[in-house]
Amino acid sequence: MKSAKELMQEGQAALKQRTYYTAFPESPKAYTEGSTEESQDSFARLLNQDFSEFKSEGAQAWVGTEVSPYLMTGLGIRYPQFSTETLISRAETAQMGWRSSSPDQRAEVLTDCLYRIQKRFFDLAVSTMHTTGQGYMMSFQASGPHANDRAMEAMSMAYQELTRFESEVQFVKPMGKFDLTLRKTFKPIPRGLGLVIGCSTFPTWNTVPGLFANLMCGNASIIKPHPKSILPIAQVVGEMQKAFEAAGFDPYTVQLAVDTLEQPVTKELAEHPSIKLIDYTGGSHFGEYIESLPGKSVFTEKAGVNGVILESVNQPAAVFGNISFAASLYSGQMCTAPQNIFVPAAGIQTAEGSLTFDQVVSGIAEAISGLANNPKMGPFTLGAIQNEATAKRVQSLSGAVLAASSVENPEFADARTLSPAVVAVDAADTATWKQECFGPALFVIRCKDREEALALAAQSAAELGAITSQCYSTDESFCEQVADAMNAAFAPVSFNFTGAAFVNQHAAFSDFHVTGGNPSGNATFADANYVNRRFVWVGNRYA
Amino acid sequence: MKSAKELMQEGQAALKQRTYYTAFPESPKAYTEGSTEESQDSFARLLNQDFSEFKSEGAQAWVGTEVSPYLMTGLGIRYPQFSTETLISRAETAQMGWRSSSPDQRAEVLTDCLYRIQKRFFDLAVSTMHTTGQGYMMSFQASGPHANDRAMEAMSMAYQELTRFESEVQFVKPMGKFDLTLRKTFKPIPRGLGLVIGCSTFPTWNTVPGLFANLMCGNASIIKPHPKSILPIAQVVGEMQKAFEAAGFDPYTVQLAVDTLEQPVTKELAEHPSIKLIDYTGGSHFGEYIESLPGKSVFTEKAGVNGVILESVNQPAAVFGNISFAASLYSGQMCTAPQNIFVPAAGIQTAEGSLTFDQVVSGIAEAISGLANNPKMGPFTLGAIQNEATAKRVQSLSGAVLAASSVENPEFADARTLSPAVVAVDAADTATWKQECFGPALFVIRCKDREEALALAAQSAAELGAITSQCYSTDESFCEQVADAMNAAFAPVSFNFTGAAFVNQHAAFSDFHVTGGNPSGNATFADANYVNRRFVWVGNRYA
Repeated sequence: MKSAKELMQEGQAALKQRTYYTAFPESPKAYTEGSTEESQDSFARLLNQDFSEFKSEGAQAWVGTEVSPYLMTGLGIRYPQFSTETLISRAETAQMGWRSSSPDQRAEVLTDCLYRIQKRFFDLAVSTMHTTGQGYMMSFQASGPHANDRAMEAMSMAYQELTRFESEVQFVKPMGKFDLTLRKTFKPIPRGLGLVIGCSTFPTWNTVPGLFANLMCGNASIIKPHPKSILPIAQVVGEMQKAFEAAGFDPYTVQLAVDTLEQPVTKELAEHPSIKLIDYTGGSHFGEYIESLPGKSVFTEKAGVNGVILESVNQPAAVFGNISFAASLYSGQMCTAPQNIFVPAAGIQTAEGSLTFDQVVSGIAEAISGLANNPKMGPFTLGAIQNEATAKRVQSLSGAVLAASSVENPEFADARTLSPAVVAVDAADTATWKQECFGPALFVIRCKDREEALALAAQSAAELGAITSQCYSTDESFCEQVADAMNAAFAPVSFNFTGAAFVNQHAAFSDFHVTGGNPSGNATFADANYVNRRFVWVGNRYA
Repeated sequence: MKSAKELMQEGQAALKQRTYYTAFPESPKAYTEGSTEESQDSFARLLNQDFSEFKSEGAQAWVGTEVSPYLMTGLGIRYPQFSTETLISRAETAQMGWRSSSPDQRAEVLTDCLYRIQKRFFDLAVSTMHTTGQGYMMSFQASGPHANDRAMEAMSMAYQELTRFESEVQFVKPMGKFDLTLRKTFKPIPRGLGLVIGCSTFPTWNTVPGLFANLMCGNASIIKPHPKSILPIAQVVGEMQKAFEAAGFDPYTVQLAVDTLEQPVTKELAEHPSIKLIDYTGGSHFGEYIESLPGKSVFTEKAGVNGVILESVNQPAAVFGNISFAASLYSGQMCTAPQNIFVPAAGIQTAEGSLTFDQVVSGIAEAISGLANNPKMGPFTLGAIQNEATAKRVQSLSGAVLAASSVENPEFADARTLSPAVVAVDAADTATWKQECFGPALFVIRCKDREEALALAAQSAAELGAITSQCYSTDESFCEQVADAMNAAFAPVSFNFTGAAFVNQHAAFSDFHVTGGNPSGNATFADANYVNRRFVWVGNRYA
């Protein structure tokens, strides 16, 4: 295990270099403590019980309405629920101690949190599967090492910013006949209490960056998880409370505020005057409400509609395979999944000859069927559908070239599964494609030519938001045009991905996740804004 | 003259060190080109003419309603006025070239701007006097070297942030049997067009930081000056347009949008969808409107009410002298001027014995009278009152221990002058003191004890905003309490200032101006937020 100091040094260097870096390798084989089997057993023991890993004193109720998308039964796990006033007053008390800790002290405690969480990677894999519907490998990686890496990325950026100015200086100004001498101190003052609002599909990965950024900047935080995806982050909170307590800090520096879809508490918490920071992952409508709250520093990741410009390729099979995998991974329920594929009406050039528009559509559809129907790949790539509404939305698409269909999972007979639908559509039919269709669905859009394909992709990114985008083109000058136009809409572009490179994957310390420049969100994992808006520089002067 | 490269290197080092640094010395003697006399002559030639220093093609009208607070006559200078559509469309055209320039290219052009502005320091001193009412020395320093230093500070911070990540890397991720290799680029993409809304009292000092930050980050900008303080920034814009043109860039990268109080254009510009960045200095009410505009990155400096906690001192005369100078400088029309002095009802301890509350009040009043009535100091320290409303507000204060009174200016017989009023008031009389009273007025507030003095000062900073604050105390532990409580309200504190140290003075590269944490504004000259919110990191990936 590396020390906090080593991690912060490595993290700061990695942030600048933006090459591959990880402190938590993504392979389960890298971890010898625990195992999938043990974690499956512990998960079974949690069912239909009161959850006891984090502090429950003063609970006003015990609630929990999670449903496993694999088992299609309720988990029956009940979590302690606290009144908003209890949560806020405990956070305010905890804040008194935490706000005056140094960046090094905070890094120590949070590093301990990361290593305690690491011991739970297998538990998190199982709990993430049975709340989100992710496949096992994604559950392990996303909620375990990838989440920890993103948390450490936010910590490293915060550490760097908190220490970027001298903390105490002698200011000596020559005044002609004499010098004016002042002692000055510069302190990063925490903004105040933080609220981190989680989503149903990535309950830890999308939560810990904001949480660790808040904490590193000295702000006690309350996590409001999605009511259908509580367990993974509840396990994380349990570990963190233990780490805070072990370090002599108030365990309530991190709290979990659970609720139900029927009686949500998010607005009450978000609007509370003591909440100064809000991190939010979720739908755009509620995200815009969060962004509109006055007097709060707000960090959002909302919906995006990710486009693919398909203009010319070398090997069409490799390209169709890559797109189909990107669309199938977790059944298109990733915020980075492609949705709209813009293709010239005249088709595309390939090294193997030209393909008509219809051949492109059927090539993609066949690649998707092939993957879904591969029993060794399909079920594990697709995982399960987190929310019934997602399944219904995709199943109701009319005129699909390839309809979404359920795929048998050999381990979970009742799993709610769905392979991506493929719909071919004219560019003019914006009612069909120019909106988010969250879940397993690809729209192949017939454009006049590549210029229209680019124009529509860029316009869509600017208007609807895009977290990422792709381009397949063998024409370098066209690629430059695509980069310029998409980047002007603040959408990153991945060019000519085949093989093991997938647009969905955003690596901590290298890829900025969400740019913050278009409607898909106002913040980035993790640029300097991501941490600097969580504290305020204040300088005092002493004569 | 230093090169852009040297300036950016020095600036970045100075930002971190936060000790004294200047690229533009504040003494007029440091500048051999030009003179006060020459500039007075040129100023006289500008009166009642059409202003021709910046581009006027396509003007729809010529307007100008400035009045000299020294001469009390209209300047009669008319500036070309353009329609919003003309301004925006020219900015958009200019932006096409400017946005793709490199940080080094931008630093070159903007350094040229700074040196061209330097040649106009004497002109700016005279034009600033006759629009703002500042005394000559303040006019020279604030609009000349101090403004240039603040512009350079913003440039340096932007340069540092624009170059903080590697711009191109090879990402090599070990995948077990093979490596995944991607080329990645990281680009800071400009947010879009900027609008910089100036104020009447510091027409260049409060404008150039946001302007240079915008430009350094690749955003063409439109300046909307206060209709009563156009001339100084018009001269700056003239120089900048020449610099842009000389460097082969579109001169309309910087434009001036003049208006009148009767027909303001600010809202039309601010709400224009192409304006993505707004810098604002001015009243709180309009500032809150600007902050509420959706989809804009907004940087505000609004009203603050700066408090002084007076608890114990060594030499009362030195302290009263310091406070009276801080309150008299530019007749209290600085955003950093003290307004409310919180004093324990039992009075204060001094090295010369204790003083009653009333003795403190009279000590301050006498120091103010003494300064105002010193013919060598008074008129030049006070300057003139920019706005008739300020004079009326202060003159209408009832129950003043010392009434505001006009002070004869030996050079300008008609000058609108006013020395600070001193009002003694009970803490409970919040209607009198707990609001901004912009202009020359000090409220000495009778508090139960020092704890109440601190509590009221901190509460006032949190609720009304405070750009700065002061404390006089010989008790170190009380000073610590004051620092903690005021800093928690995001107000900086200056302790025990006497002699040549004045609370009003915020030095570029050392003192953050406005913290951004309380209602006095949401931004700081110049932390990292000040520049990072003006562009967006976008990464592209190439297989």
